Amino acid sequence: MAYNLLKGKKGIIFGALDENSIAWKTAQACYAEGAQIVLTNAPIALRMGTINKLAEEIGAPVIPADVTLTADIENLFEKSMEHFGGGVDFILHSIGMSINVRKGIHYTENNYEFTHKGLDISALSLHRVLATAMKMDAINEWGSVVALTYIAAQRIFPDYNDMADNKAYLESIARNFGYQYGVKKNVRINTVSQSPTRTTAGSGVKGFDGFITYAEKMSPLGNATGEDCANYCVSLFSDLTKMVTMQNLFNDGGFSFTGVSQAVIEQMEK
Amino acid sequence: MAYNLLKGKKGIIFGALDENSIAWKTAQACYAEGAQIVLTNAPIALRMGTINKLAEEIGAPVIPADVTLTADIENLFEKSMEHFGGGVDFILHSIGMSINVRKGIHYTENNYEFTHKGLDISALSLHRVLATAMKMDAINEWGSVVALTYIAAQRIFPDYNDMADNKAYLESIARNFGYQYGVKKNVRINTVSQSPTRTTAGSGVKGFDGFITYAEKMSPLGNATGEDCANYCVSLFSDLTKMVTMQNLFNDGGFSFTGVSQAVIEQMEK
Amino acid sequence: MAYNLLKGKKGIIFGALDENSIAWKTAQACYAEGAQIVLTNAPIALRMGTINKLAEEIGAPVIPADVTLTADIENLFEKSMEHFGGGVDFILHSIGMSINVRKGIHYTENNYEFTHKGLDISALSLHRVLATAMKMDAINEWGSVVALTYIAAQRIFPDYNDMADNKAYLESIARNFGYQYGVKKNVRINTVSQSPTRTTAGSGVKGFDGFITYAEKMSPLGNATGEDCANYCVSLFSDLTKMVTMQNLFNDGGFSFTGVSQAVIEQMEK
Amino acid sequence: MAYNLLKGKKGIIFGALDENSIAWKTAQACYAEGAQIVLTNAPIALRMGTINKLAEEIGAPVIPADVTLTADIENLFEKSMEHFGGGVDFILHSIGMSINVRKGIHYTENNYEFTHKGLDISALSLHRVLATAMKMDAINEWGSVVALTYIAAQRIFPDYNDMADNKAYLESIARNFGYQYGVKKNVRINTVSQSPTRTTAGSGVKGFDGFITYAEKMSPLGNATGEDCANYCVSLFSDLTKMVTMQNLFNDGGFSFTGVSQAVIEQMEK
Repeated sequence: MAYNLLKGKKGIIFGALDENSIAWKTAQACYAEGAQIVLTNAPIALRMGTINKLAEEIGAPVIPADVTLTADIENLFEKSMEHFGGGVDFILHSIGMSINVRKGIHYTENNYEFTHKGLDISALSLHRVLATAMKMDAINEWGSVVALTYIAAQRIFPDYNDMADNKAYLESIARNFGYQYGVKKNVRINTVSQSPTRTTAGSGVKGFDGFITYAEKMSPLGNATGEDCANYCVSLFSDLTKMVTMQNLFNDGGFSFTGVSQAVIEQMEK
Repeated sequence: MAYNLLKGKKGIIFGALDENSIAWKTAQACYAEGAQIVLTNAPIALRMGTINKLAEEIGAPVIPADVTLTADIENLFEKSMEHFGGGVDFILHSIGMSINVRKGIHYTENNYEFTHKGLDISALSLHRVLATAMKMDAINEWGSVVALTYIAAQRIFPDYNDMADNKAYLESIARNFGYQYGVKKNVRINTVSQSPTRTTAGSGVKGFDGFITYAEKMSPLGNATGEDCANYCVSLFSDLTKMVTMQNLFNDGGFSFTGVSQAVIEQMEK
Repeated sequence: MAYNLLKGKKGIIFGALDENSIAWKTAQACYAEGAQIVLTNAPIALRMGTINKLAEEIGAPVIPADVTLTADIENLFEKSMEHFGGGVDFILHSIGMSINVRKGIHYTENNYEFTHKGLDISALSLHRVLATAMKMDAINEWGSVVALTYIAAQRIFPDYNDMADNKAYLESIARNFGYQYGVKKNVRINTVSQSPTRTTAGSGVKGFDGFITYAEKMSPLGNATGEDCANYCVSLFSDLTKMVTMQNLFNDGGFSFTGVSQAVIEQMEK
Repeated sequence: MAYNLLKGKKGIIFGALDENSIAWKTAQACYAEGAQIVLTNAPIALRMGTINKLAEEIGAPVIPADVTLTADIENLFEKSMEHFGGGVDFILHSIGMSINVRKGIHYTENNYEFTHKGLDISALSLHRVLATAMKMDAINEWGSVVALTYIAAQRIFPDYNDMADNKAYLESIARNFGYQYGVKKNVRINTVSQSPTRTTAGSGVKGFDGFITYAEKMSPLGNATGEDCANYCVSLFSDLTKMVTMQNLFNDGGFSFTGVSQAVIEQMEK
C-alpha cells in the first residue's frame, strides 16, 4: 500500500531488532506511507540485531538509547529533533523483557530484583520516554504515541509470567500519561494489544507454540501478523484517528471477545 | 484529506438525514477517499431530510429501506449489487430511535410496545442487515461493518433512557455476528462509541446541553466531532485495520477512561 | 450452613422449575438463612415442574406470574405484600428462554418474532418486575435484586445464540434501573454471571457438554455449581453487601479472567 | 451484626494503622463474626498508629512485618501458624504508599527511584505475601485473599498519581496469582475497589476533598464507608463466596458504572 497517509510526519520507532520485529515492519510501513523515521534500540540490541539493514532501506538514522537511562532518552530526543528540524509526530514503543522469563523462573517464585528490572525496561520506559518528551517539548501538537501490549494484562496466560503485570502497568501509564499529555498538548497515547506473534522476542516464551495454535483457533479471523500490526499502527499515527486516546486497542482477529470458538470445542471433544 | 485510502471500495451508508448527521459526513469522507457509495434511509427520513443534496454531491443513488422490513433490506442489497456490479466492501449503520425518549416517558415507566419498536429499529436492524447480507452473499471477503453506538451501553446516563439498553444489545449483535461473519468470510464488524454529537437526532435527548458540556470538560482532547467520527470510520473501512473485529472502539477524546478531570473537579468546587 | 444471615428478610424467587434449578437451590439457601420466601414462575412452568415440593419444604406460597404480563406482576407483588405484611427485601430473577434456541434456528438466521418474544421473557421481564415494584413501592429501603446472567453477554459462545444478546440487554437494565432505584430508595441491583450449570433449562443448549468440559478445564477452581450460586446470592441479599450495585459479578471459579489454562493448552497439543 | 459467619476461621490483617483504617474496621468485623486474627503492619506504622488498642480489643497478637522484606513475611507466617496451630483461612492486604504523592511530585515528573519503592510497598508486597505463603503452605485449602484497590487502576484520576499504576499492577498480581493458587490449592484471590474513604492514608492525596464530594454525587447509593468495606470483606472471606476468584469487585455505591448522575449534571449547569 502507499497512500501517503503519513506524508510530512516524523516518528521515532523503538524496538526494531530484526526483520521479524513488529517495530521493523512498522518502520517500513510508516516509511512507505511517507513518514521520516528515527530508529532506536538498546546498545546491546543494536549489536545483536540487524538494524543497519533497515536503517539503510528507509534512510533512517539509528540513535542508540537504553530506555532505563533518562540521559539516553534526552539524547535521543535531542538528536531526533536536530535530524527532523523540529518535534516528532509519532512514537512506537515496542519494548519488553522479563529476566524472570529468560531465566525460566516460575511466576510464583519470581526474583524481585529481576521483576523490578523487567518493569523498568518494559513499562516504566514508556513513562520515561513521555516525561522526557514533555519536558523537552519534543512531541508536536496532535502527536500520536502507540505502545505494544498483550491481552495477558487483562486475563491469565500462565506462561506469560511477570510480563502480564508489566503490561498491566504499561497500559496504566498509557492511560495516565494520555490524560496529562492530552490536556497539555492534544497528544494521544494508546496501546495496541496484538495477537501472539512469532518475533525473535516472542518466541522466547515457554509453551509459545501450543499457545499460538490455540489463539489461531480461537480467533475468527486468525492471528494478526506483524504486518497487520504495522498497518494498524499506521492508521493510529495518521490524522484519521485524532480523537482516539487512552485506549487499549485489540488487533487480534477477534480473539479478545471470543469466549470459545467452534474449532476449540471440536479440539476439546477429541 | 485525500489519500485514496478507499479507492475501488464500495459501501452502503445508512442514516444520513441532513448535513449534521455523522452518516452524512462519513459518506463525504468515504467519497473523498475514493469509495463509491449507496445511500439509504427510511422513507420518512428521506422525506424529512435533505439527502438528495448529498446524493448529488457524491454521485450516489438513494435506495429507500425501512430497516424493520427484511424485504426492504433485500431490495437494498439487490439494487446496490446491481449498481456496484458486485458485493459491497463496507457498511455504516448509523440508526437509532427511541419512542420512549421522543414521548418523554421516564425510563422507569417505559411503554414496552415502544421499547420493542425502538429495539427493532435501533439494534435488531443491524442483525437484519447482516443476516440478509450473509444470505445474499452481499459483503465481499474482508469487508468491514461499523455501527455507531454510545458509552451509555456500559455506564449510566440517566436521560439516555432505553437507548442505553438498545446500544448494549446492538454491541452484542456486533460481537456475535462478528464471530459468525468472520469465520465464514473474514468480514469484520465493530462498533464506534462516539462522543455526544450535536446531530439532529442527538439533540432530541433531554438534558443534552448540560451533558455535552460535561463530556467536553471530562475529555482530555474534548468531544470528538462528526468529522472526527467520519475520519475514524474511514480508517476502519480501509485495509489498514483488517484484523480488528468484534470490538467496541471509543472515539471520544479520552472520555471513557477519564474518571474525573481537573476541569470537572474545579466545577464541583464552585 | 445456617448463620441466620437473612433473618427477618422477605424475598421473591422467580424461576424455580425443579430441583436442578439455581432458583430452587437459592430459595432453599435463603430459607436456611432465615428468610421468608414467595415462589413464582410462569403457569406453564408450574405445571411442568415440581415446585410444590419446594413450596412445602420451605413453607412458601406459590404465586403464578407470566413475566410478560404487567398485570401478573402487579398481582404477584400485591399478594406477596399481603403475605409478608409489607414490602420485600430481595428478589431473584432467574428467567431465560430463547425460542430460536429451542427451535434450533442458527443465530445468523434468527426469526425476529421469536427474538422479540425471547427478549420479552428473558430480559424485559426484569424491567417489568422493577418498574412494577417501583410503582407499587414494593421493595424495602436497601433491598437487593439479583438477576442471573452469563458471560456470553461479554464474549462469544457460538451456540448460545440470541440468549447472548438477551443477557447483554438484561445486564444493561440492571445497571440502568440500579441507578434509578438506587437514587430513589437505596435499592441495589446486580447480575451474577454464573458458570455453565447443568439445569434443566441449560441442558437444552446445543453443544452444552463439550462446552461445560471446556469451562471446567479453563476455570482454576472448576465450574461453580448451583449450590455455589445460591450461596453467593445469599451474600448479595444480606446486609454485608449494601453498597454493591450496578455490577455484573462473576461466580465462575475464575473462568472470566483466564485467557488460557495449562489444562486447555495440553488438550490443544493432543 | 454477628452471624458467626467466620467461626473457626483464622486470618491475617495487614495495614491497620488507626481507627480510621479500613483494615482496622475489617479486623473488628471479622472478629465479631467469630474469626481469630493476627494483626501486622510495618514497624514504623506500628509506632505511629494505635494498633495495640485494637489488638487488645480483639485479642490478636501484633507481628511486625516490613512487606518489602521476604524474611519479615516468612517470620509473620511462621509466628501466625504457631499462634493459630495451623494455616490461615484469609488475608487482607490493605497497603499502599507513594513517595511521589507524599513529596508532591507531579505524575509527569515522577522520580523513578520513588516509583520503584512505592510499587514494592503497594503492589509487589502482595506477590511477596502470596509467594511466601505458597512456599510455606501457609494458606488453607479454599482460603480467601482480598487486596484493597481503587478505580484509578481503570480510569484516570489526575491527583492519584503513580498509585494508579501501582493499583493496576496489584490487580494484575491478584489475577495471576489467583490462577496459580487456585489451580494449586483452591485459594481464591480478589481485589475490592472501594469508594474514596477518609482514612489517615487516603486524606494525604491532593484534592481529596473535592474528589470525595464528586464521588458522593456520582454514586447512586453514595460513597461506601470503611464499615461497608469491612462487611463486604467478611462476605468474601466466608464460605458463601468460594467460587469467586480473580475478580476486581467494586464496593462503591454504583460509582463505577455511573457515566453521569443527575446531581453532577445540576452542578455542571451552575
